Amino acid sequence: MMDLHEVVRLKVNFKTLEEFENFREYGQQELSMKEDLEENIVENDSESPFYGVYFGNKLVGRMSLYQIDKKFDRYFEPPQDYLELWKLEVLPGYQGKGIGNALVNFAKSHGVPVKTNARQRSDDFWIKQGFEALTYQTDRDRGENPYVWLPEGVSEQLEE
Amino acid sequence: MMDLHEVVRLKVNFKTLEEFENFREYGQQELSMKEDLEENIVENDSESPFYGVYFGNKLVGRMSLYQIDKKFDRYFEPPQDYLELWKLEVLPGYQGKGIGNALVNFAKSHGVPVKTNARQRSDDFWIKQGFEALTYQTDRDRGENPYVWLPEGVSEQLEE
Repeated sequence: MMDLHEVVRLKVNFKTLEEFENFREYGQQELSMKEDLEENIVENDSESPFYGVYFGNKLVGRMSLYQIDKKFDRYFEPPQDYLELWKLEVLPGYQGKGIGNALVNFAKSHGVPVKTNARQRSDDFWIKQGFEALTYQTDRDRGENPYVWLPEGVSEQLEE
Repeated sequence: MMDLHEVVRLKVNFKTLEEFENFREYGQQELSMKEDLEENIVENDSESPFYGVYFGNKLVGRMSLYQIDKKFDRYFEPPQDYLELWKLEVLPGYQGKGIGNALVNFAKSHGVPVKTNARQRSDDFWIKQGFEALTYQTDRDRGENPYVWLPEGVSEQLEE
């Protein structure tokens, strides 16, 4: 299947921030970016940790992707740098068109492990994306639903 | 206003686990408890990190409450033991009756700071409960919406 959805890195500007308001998961992270922009703490058009897919002029899917340093790795064996993916969301009306898939593939394309916290009842989606549920560790996971994508040669880090 | 909702600590047994299936936030934590019970890793009726409110025989509200050690505290000044509250949820049909409030008050009654990750668009609820949003720190918060309740003499831990 061809993938026609281009994933682009989003810039921090007022247009992007306005688009973010269309997404359900809107909170402190977005408000903080807005404040930083208003107070000139970040420059207009500076790079954000968000990646998105546009349909014409409209942002219809997005995710945040953040590189975590090996020294904080509690998920993978051997411990290594990995990507934490969160706030993956495709607007209603644009779902089922492979946009979420394109975003996840972009994350996987870096060849390093990817960790996410699966939202309620989204397990099927993540399994379809080649992710697997980790063994739940209360101290580490605290109510999260950690799902990971493991590249060749990487396994789950087990509790000590 | 009188508070008629008794908050009880939930036991790990098959009845509780069956009740958990009625809640939207059902994931690895619940599945892991189920497995532990089936494989006799935990005893029937052992204590869970969940607290709940019953209406008659039916579990209608719940939350998970977990004590975090001072050495992992990145939220409070001075750094101290605190409670992490997650999966606060009241079943549809039982909302607006003070059940969520009773659960949060139970958490606050321990006199230590409480930290939660506010779900999308739930800010008003937490503010009404006396919580406040923390200044967003990307490295620490990774897409979370951290809200905290601060007892007298405790303030927000600022970025180093």
